[in-house]
Amino acid sequence: MKILLVGAHGTVGRGVAAELAQRHEIVDAGRRGASVTLDLADADSIRRALESVGPVDAIVSAAGQVGWAPLLELTPEQWAFSVANKLMGQVNLALVGQAYLRDGGSITLTSGVLVDQPVRYGAAASLANGAIEAFVRAAAIELPRGLRINAVSPGVLLESMSELGPFFRGFEPVPAARVALAYSRSVEGAETGRVYPVR
Amino acid sequence: MKILLVGAHGTVGRGVAAELAQRHEIVDAGRRGASVTLDLADADSIRRALESVGPVDAIVSAAGQVGWAPLLELTPEQWAFSVANKLMGQVNLALVGQAYLRDGGSITLTSGVLVDQPVRYGAAASLANGAIEAFVRAAAIELPRGLRINAVSPGVLLESMSELGPFFRGFEPVPAARVALAYSRSVEGAETGRVYPVR
Repeated sequence: MKILLVGAHGTVGRGVAAELAQRHEIVDAGRRGASVTLDLADADSIRRALESVGPVDAIVSAAGQVGWAPLLELTPEQWAFSVANKLMGQVNLALVGQAYLRDGGSITLTSGVLVDQPVRYGAAASLANGAIEAFVRAAAIELPRGLRINAVSPGVLLESMSELGPFFRGFEPVPAARVALAYSRSVEGAETGRVYPVR
Repeated sequence: MKILLVGAHGTVGRGVAAELAQRHEIVDAGRRGASVTLDLADADSIRRALESVGPVDAIVSAAGQVGWAPLLELTPEQWAFSVANKLMGQVNLALVGQAYLRDGGSITLTSGVLVDQPVRYGAAASLANGAIEAFVRAAAIELPRGLRINAVSPGVLLESMSELGPFFRGFEPVPAARVALAYSRSVEGAETGRVYPVR
């Protein structure tokens, strides 16, 4: 398969690339330092990226930023940033990207543990995750041509604990390699409309 | 209690008003025809409304519009409209409104059955509902002064079946009066961070 991987250089993305590159051609896309430039917050840049890469068999998003602050200190700008990136950025990747998928191709988005296990500072992340999971369930029943869409909902990454540990005390960290298996299952399996929690 | 009810003239809102007005003072707010003018999509109008109503014991949203179209025909404008209204409109109602709540007061938002039981045309509604439910779980752990926040997730309303029936074939309709009980439970109970499905 030819797979467009958005966010290949992030912690999750590196794990996904390592897993899927064993069997497939990976085209890495991202805001900078990637083979293909793609900014999730800019629908035109998503279109240009897919136009340049041509038909693919799978689109994987291991990307999507959110604002991070105490609930009552999150600014309107941080909410808008979160909505434009992890939330509507991934939705636009799916909606624009589906036209560039071969029949039966798949889209895999990323939500996260904060959808149902909230932490302080994480309200915008929780909101984006909840939106993505519901969107995936809904989009799955309307996508044409046998196209599939799923989400992976990772716990806090073991590789991110030095940075995120203080926010996630008591959470059992998950190695990126384990998280990557869920992306493989979405891409190489046959299910649609599923959320794969990796906790 | 003094309760600000946004969307009191909608199908859900009328049921909520009928239930809560038996025991409490209801201030109805909405875009037009309400005692207090409030447009969820406009954070300033939320602030002006709350400023004029003064301290309240509960804020209830039975409002929030979304775009409704086949997945691949939803326009960027419809997505933005959905995000600004049912999604961030309710989030802003909570974030602005919490400052006007008396200690121990509550916020009740509305999601809906499409969060996990999608139908054609409903992707933007599903997305908004998923976002609201995750937001409520997250906000609950950070709200100060014993403030509470919950969501009610109604099925398709019996009173809406003449209009919505074709989109919800096979769904068991729920009378607004039954849905209203969940709002009562959120407002008059003691839980927080809960989603009350009424199906």
